[in-house]
Amino acid sequence: MTKKILGIDLGGTSVKFAILTENGEIQQKWSIRTNILDEGSHIVPDIIESIKHRMELYEMTSEDFLGIGMGSPGAVNRENGTVFGAYNLNWKQTIEIKQAIEAETGLPFFIDNDANVAALGEKWQGAGADDDNVVFVTLGTGVGGGVITDGNLVHGVAESGGELGHITVDPKDGFDCTCGKKGCLETVASATGVLNLTRKLSEEYAGDSQLKTMVDDGAEITSKQVFDLAKQGDDLAEMVVDEFSFYLGLACSHLGNILNPKFIVIGGGVSNAGEFLLEKVRKNFAQFTFPNVRETTKIKIAELGNDAGVIGASYLVKTGL
Amino acid sequence: MTKKILGIDLGGTSVKFAILTENGEIQQKWSIRTNILDEGSHIVPDIIESIKHRMELYEMTSEDFLGIGMGSPGAVNRENGTVFGAYNLNWKQTIEIKQAIEAETGLPFFIDNDANVAALGEKWQGAGADDDNVVFVTLGTGVGGGVITDGNLVHGVAESGGELGHITVDPKDGFDCTCGKKGCLETVASATGVLNLTRKLSEEYAGDSQLKTMVDDGAEITSKQVFDLAKQGDDLAEMVVDEFSFYLGLACSHLGNILNPKFIVIGGGVSNAGEFLLEKVRKNFAQFTFPNVRETTKIKIAELGNDAGVIGASYLVKTGL
Repeated sequence: MTKKILGIDLGGTSVKFAILTENGEIQQKWSIRTNILDEGSHIVPDIIESIKHRMELYEMTSEDFLGIGMGSPGAVNRENGTVFGAYNLNWKQTIEIKQAIEAETGLPFFIDNDANVAALGEKWQGAGADDDNVVFVTLGTGVGGGVITDGNLVHGVAESGGELGHITVDPKDGFDCTCGKKGCLETVASATGVLNLTRKLSEEYAGDSQLKTMVDDGAEITSKQVFDLAKQGDDLAEMVVDEFSFYLGLACSHLGNILNPKFIVIGGGVSNAGEFLLEKVRKNFAQFTFPNVRETTKIKIAELGNDAGVIGASYLVKTGL
Repeated sequence: MTKKILGIDLGGTSVKFAILTENGEIQQKWSIRTNILDEGSHIVPDIIESIKHRMELYEMTSEDFLGIGMGSPGAVNRENGTVFGAYNLNWKQTIEIKQAIEAETGLPFFIDNDANVAALGEKWQGAGADDDNVVFVTLGTGVGGGVITDGNLVHGVAESGGELGHITVDPKDGFDCTCGKKGCLETVASATGVLNLTRKLSEEYAGDSQLKTMVDDGAEITSKQVFDLAKQGDDLAEMVVDEFSFYLGLACSHLGNILNPKFIVIGGGVSNAGEFLLEKVRKNFAQFTFPNVRETTKIKIAELGNDAGVIGASYLVKTGL
């Protein structure tokens, strides 16, 4: 009998688990609430309990598994299996995860940053089509990413490889970013970025637009509404999406010219705008890339949705052993 | 006795050769003129003859060598050992190099693009201090580069990884580039780029500047002159160097935010401006990079000069065997 892999995607709201085959097929899937009370001290014990409970339920033992992989927010020390500064988990100091989980399960444990792990998932089983040169850009509240060259994640010298949300796309007149600098991709090409652009452009806007009326009425606006209005031809909303796509296309062109990956995969909630968005991004990408890159690097929408994390986490085990 | 490696740096003016130890020490060095007559058909035979002649001279045989490595201009097919489109060699079709050299010497042959090979040289024996995460940017007539992650060159899906000269740094108002697009790093941060910037800025300039006088007199100006004048405090020349450094710092920030390499090594003739230039580039780099990247990725001047090619070529053999 071939062995299984346990993939875990640790997030601020829930912890997602899956049991996968070595080929990346999900066989069981469940999740638990992330209990961030008491400085997040329940999280690791809850995870261990949930693993044990499910193993019992499925009549499985450690013998049935190759190992456990996890994607985590915060700064991950892959070697020690610790996490530092995961503030959305209420973890205020360095947390030992590998040690605790290996001691309780007897299985080898692998961990990496959540955006990197999602990138591995899309590379292996999603839009990356298991190619060895894939970049993943995730557009959510912020912008994250992972860079894979020759089949390996690029961690860089201090684990800050793939800080794609902080590529400077507007060096002269950019919005302030939470990282302390200005003009980061994240300030324009995220859910927050859509609102930044909407506010900025609506101030100068004088035409006929439902979005403009909503802004002036002080209505709460979501990035989904802006994309939906743009699809319906709302003038201001189209201007916002055009500027969003300009910056995202420019950042993707940097990825293309530097790495010439087979695929740049766009995921995260904002990517639900789908082909409507991609078409505009591709136009800008083409304008800003070296001819041979333009012809050979493709931009695609992510395919795995919320499963990217658990699948990528299990890939850590498959390739790390 | 340990074996030696033969490194070859093929250029449009000369072919440089070196015999190196496995540790990258150059023991012998020579060069021949590149004869580009008759569609460059003499180049490969000349190289083979020169190798044989020197082996005889040093009383060495193929037995004494691990292999031969080469950096070449044009589009290199590493597997087949062929080169296409090396127009400065007058090669108008695909040229078989590996086959010819292996047949005549009986030694394994490895080849890669010249900028990639120079990057390997600086990584191994130069400013890269043998770190596994190094990016090399060479500022000459144009701008080239090579990207090394986890010890390996990033070739990308179609060998266009490392097209650093074509990173778009001025997406809205850039100079035309030879590649067909606008605003490439090469149009501002190369010898040609210095002249582009000088012309553009001098048109709007009204103050007191020796450089402005030279431009108005129609004098021939070199990038070295512009840097020398800037060092002496010439107002217009300082503006040119500031803009040059802004764009180069911005492009380096993209490399930093995407890859977080240990070193970004700046080489090529224009880098002779040295620390005067680097100080300005670093200031812009710091402004545009994520805090942890700013603190951990260092920008340095290349150390090997013209030897980078033969040293990197021999590294191809060392790592390729």
